[in-house]
Amino acid sequence: MVNIAVLGYGTVGSGVVEVINTNHKSINKRAGAEINIKYVLDLRDFPGDPVQDILVHDYEIIANDPEVDIVVEVMGGIEPAYTFVKRALESGKSVCTSNKALVAKHGPELMEIAREKDINFLFEASCGGGIPIIRALNSSLTADEIDEITGILNGTTNYMLYKMSTEGSDFDAVLKEAQEKGYAEADPTADVEGYDACRKIAILSSLAYGKFLNYENIYTEGITKITPADMAYAADLGMSVKLLATSRKIGNDSFYAMVAPFLVGKESPLYSVNDVFNAVFVHGNVLGDAMFYGSGAGKLPTASAVVADIVDEAKHLHRNIMTNWTSRPLELMDLADVEGRFFVRVKEATVAQVEEIFGNVQIVNLKQFPGEFAFITSEMKQGEYEEKVKKLNGRVITMIRVKD
Amino acid sequence: MVNIAVLGYGTVGSGVVEVINTNHKSINKRAGAEINIKYVLDLRDFPGDPVQDILVHDYEIIANDPEVDIVVEVMGGIEPAYTFVKRALESGKSVCTSNKALVAKHGPELMEIAREKDINFLFEASCGGGIPIIRALNSSLTADEIDEITGILNGTTNYMLYKMSTEGSDFDAVLKEAQEKGYAEADPTADVEGYDACRKIAILSSLAYGKFLNYENIYTEGITKITPADMAYAADLGMSVKLLATSRKIGNDSFYAMVAPFLVGKESPLYSVNDVFNAVFVHGNVLGDAMFYGSGAGKLPTASAVVADIVDEAKHLHRNIMTNWTSRPLELMDLADVEGRFFVRVKEATVAQVEEIFGNVQIVNLKQFPGEFAFITSEMKQGEYEEKVKKLNGRVITMIRVKD
Repeated sequence: MVNIAVLGYGTVGSGVVEVINTNHKSINKRAGAEINIKYVLDLRDFPGDPVQDILVHDYEIIANDPEVDIVVEVMGGIEPAYTFVKRALESGKSVCTSNKALVAKHGPELMEIAREKDINFLFEASCGGGIPIIRALNSSLTADEIDEITGILNGTTNYMLYKMSTEGSDFDAVLKEAQEKGYAEADPTADVEGYDACRKIAILSSLAYGKFLNYENIYTEGITKITPADMAYAADLGMSVKLLATSRKIGNDSFYAMVAPFLVGKESPLYSVNDVFNAVFVHGNVLGDAMFYGSGAGKLPTASAVVADIVDEAKHLHRNIMTNWTSRPLELMDLADVEGRFFVRVKEATVAQVEEIFGNVQIVNLKQFPGEFAFITSEMKQGEYEEKVKKLNGRVITMIRVKD
Repeated sequence: MVNIAVLGYGTVGSGVVEVINTNHKSINKRAGAEINIKYVLDLRDFPGDPVQDILVHDYEIIANDPEVDIVVEVMGGIEPAYTFVKRALESGKSVCTSNKALVAKHGPELMEIAREKDINFLFEASCGGGIPIIRALNSSLTADEIDEITGILNGTTNYMLYKMSTEGSDFDAVLKEAQEKGYAEADPTADVEGYDACRKIAILSSLAYGKFLNYENIYTEGITKITPADMAYAADLGMSVKLLATSRKIGNDSFYAMVAPFLVGKESPLYSVNDVFNAVFVHGNVLGDAMFYGSGAGKLPTASAVVADIVDEAKHLHRNIMTNWTSRPLELMDLADVEGRFFVRVKEATVAQVEEIFGNVQIVNLKQFPGEFAFITSEMKQGEYEEKVKKLNGRVITMIRVKD
């Protein structure tokens, strides 16, 4: 029997209990042992819920019980999660977590403790909900040197952008709708400003490239400035607007990372990732293109990923599953040196002016927006773009990057 | 050091050697040991190729060398692959293979030997080339009970259908083009008749449902009857024609499986899997929808999957990685009892006649095909469809299933 303690009986925590109860037969078979939920920690009581019998309010009970093999941290936030997780690992208990903030901030330290103790710290549910991308990076794509990860890693913003494109509604209207449906929180900042996606791409990049990418170093731009007009241009171009979290290896040892809205063309498998779905595109030097698609959030998909970690830890109770992530910092190159193409909407300007500055560009005119037009630049460094665009001072309505 | 022997220096075998040489640093780090190619077995000689130094023509040398830890079978075909693999496993050497014919026919027996010897028999490259779907089923989706797997598992036919839909060419023309490009073999039967996809869905279903699905029991229909006219109707419906290999769990313990062309709508993530790409859609009872996308064939993507198996076996040299596949046979229900919708093209018939037989149907008329029309039935059992369609005796041009 493998005893687990679940920290937090919120959405994900109750999902974990539900998944273990629903699929206990197949889960125990896969784990090679009976998974027993010995404790659930929460400050609240849940009278009438069967979990009440195993509910504790004091973490000390879990920390001091040598029978607890695995601690499942699904509380969220940095504290007290960090203190609880660190103590569990130091006392030889494996930990799995869905907490992207914790992993993005303290991942290297916690993984190091797990390695020393020959136990495991796993976090499949921290990026992309139910999509098994972390296990793929850790144990499937091991023959490859990964040189790109680009993800649609936030379901809330993907839903909002999808609604804006299909219904023509503006940002505020779709945000309200998303909040009513429970897809967006009362304070939507972490989603719409890209902070959530930023932490996730930091984690995925650290695993893929084997160094620690500090999320605070990643340029992050949200979707708050995207308008129905931008969507109309995108549709005319046969493209869709997606909030992409991306990192790339350039040459031997240069990297860049950013979170920003991008125009994505039909030839990309990310183009048709709609609604609340998430997807992670990976390019490996021998594998080529691969993509992983699924529910990026939600109680049961997230719990499915947490429970898959529990099964893996039960199968490897006193054996560290190697990961490629080290504490060495991943240095990012200056975004000014990163090449790309840029979609730009301008007003009170002429095609001739634009072409004088940018050379040959692709022009888009939409009847419904008189007095303005848009163009897509050829490939150039971002620094070069910024120098050039200064000459259109005051005439730029918006700029969106183009995904190639 | 972990010594491996590669059986067969054809496309995949030379890819395996190339991948190990190209990425040796990261591969050795991931494996936690140096992967050393001690032998390559082939009947031919390769003068000038560095592999010549480690080339052997006689399997006895490999079988009798206790230093060989892992045998990599990339010869293809049942014999002598089966004999070689079985001998290797019985003498305690782990085996990985890209050979779907071998796995589909002898998988349960070979896995059983590996389990008894506490070594491993892995076959990631046998389904979907570089797509890490087998490892996902084995070690990621362990919290779920899988109730559907639907894949585009054959790159040749997907390329051909894509070309037929985008260029309006007929089957023979695209087959010739695919052969010229090296995407189809001189004898294309295994691809175009669906036999290749059939073996792959048998393997994936066996892993997902934990019982052995004999590929010989799977209804298999190829793409040879698909015409440019079918493609025109599909385009008008906003759908695409895909050769799907699918299996489903219905209720508690009933299963069906089939390989056939399907009309796929835009809401399915399989809709936009084009060209030579493969994808595997999986539905889990807690995970919901997930899809894995990538290169289904090709030298390096396939070799990437083989080498990932080598890394996994090097990490678990004397420890069997559990799989869910048992030797118990998976019984399939009668396809007559399976529900679905059916796209039917008819000539010399009236809408009234069709509606009298099938009730309410969706009618499609295309100007360029006078004298015929098409309809899509409501959901009904295939047996019921077959009974009804008899009444249109001689007036049916074609029937294609619809993916819901």
